Amino acid sequence: MSTFKTVIAYDGTEFVGWQRQASGVSIQGVLEDALRTLDGRDVAVVGAGRTDAGVHALGQVASFSLARSIDGDTLVRALNANLPESVRVMSAAEAPDGFNARFDARTKTYRYRIWTGAALSPFERRYAWHYAGPLDAGAMDAAARRLEGRRDFAAFQTAGSDVATTERTIVASRVAVADALMLYDVTGEGFLRHMVRAIVGTLIEVGRGRRPPEW
Amino acid sequence: MSTFKTVIAYDGTEFVGWQRQASGVSIQGVLEDALRTLDGRDVAVVGAGRTDAGVHALGQVASFSLARSIDGDTLVRALNANLPESVRVMSAAEAPDGFNARFDARTKTYRYRIWTGAALSPFERRYAWHYAGPLDAGAMDAAARRLEGRRDFAAFQTAGSDVATTERTIVASRVAVADALMLYDVTGEGFLRHMVRAIVGTLIEVGRGRRPPEW
Repeated sequence: MSTFKTVIAYDGTEFVGWQRQASGVSIQGVLEDALRTLDGRDVAVVGAGRTDAGVHALGQVASFSLARSIDGDTLVRALNANLPESVRVMSAAEAPDGFNARFDARTKTYRYRIWTGAALSPFERRYAWHYAGPLDAGAMDAAARRLEGRRDFAAFQTAGSDVATTERTIVASRVAVADALMLYDVTGEGFLRHMVRAIVGTLIEVGRGRRPPEW
Repeated sequence: MSTFKTVIAYDGTEFVGWQRQASGVSIQGVLEDALRTLDGRDVAVVGAGRTDAGVHALGQVASFSLARSIDGDTLVRALNANLPESVRVMSAAEAPDGFNARFDARTKTYRYRIWTGAALSPFERRYAWHYAGPLDAGAMDAAARRLEGRRDFAAFQTAGSDVATTERTIVASRVAVADALMLYDVTGEGFLRHMVRAIVGTLIEVGRGRRPPEW
């Protein structure tokens, strides 16, 4: 058995999310189907993180083990030949035995994309949230940076969550602007459920001037 | 009657092209439909250039005249409310009487996007041509720049074209690279039929090392 680490990119528009579901097409599902074709047996794919329906990935790390021996470039080509164009294996390489994309992940980075122009670019309609209003990016970045470090994020978790601790470590939390597109990038060792979404909602409140960054 | 100049962006994937056709949905068609709803009468839309099926626009200029008086921002909102999300009016402003997007165009810029990585990014599958091979971008840029100026482009026209002169003026012709994405931008006063496509084919020959830039 050989263990592989792959980097996957996908357009999540047409998928029910990363994880296999009772119905609908998942990213994990199409990857496992392609691997079964390749390896002639059922192969379990482990992702570094799960993404919800309609969420995309630029570099989702996934791991699995194969019975057959294959070099990375050949694996990339063989998998992509059996995947829809909306899911691409961008790179693949053999990994140390026991490598697990989920448990060996050190940090994860999420990006939220907000289109602030009056009219939403047709090229962003699947990839950005449209908020057509003036947003104070400087205040939002100041607020975002205040979240860096190890902190208690209880205020940003979904009500009713049941976790051992609500402390999490955020390595980087920044807001950047490129013309009408605003990007919020957050890197952390782990996140509470819906925590990033809740942070973005708060940053928008700051950007609209309803709350000061220190709030 | 008031004349308007608008800047339109569209994802051409699902359209038969800019121009109205006997069958299929065109960009011009959906714009004219939205304008009829707005103005209560048939409105003819003139585009600065025509695009083929599957070709996109970041800033296509279009002009038309309306019986009703309306300010630019309101016009943008009213049209976008009646257009598919794949077609957006990005800006609109009243123009001098007689302004015609086609005849008053001074230059047009076309961009060709080529993805040179082994696996085509899922976010580029509708927006880039996939050529997974090493390309010498420096040689291609050198070749591209040699096309600037007023020249006879007969070698780059479609066979059987019937035009008064095959001389055209290219204002800028450049190749740039951003990671796996190669961009060819060409700005000219006018182009022969399929001329830009033929230029790109020639640049690829140069990029593969089959021909020198001066060829």
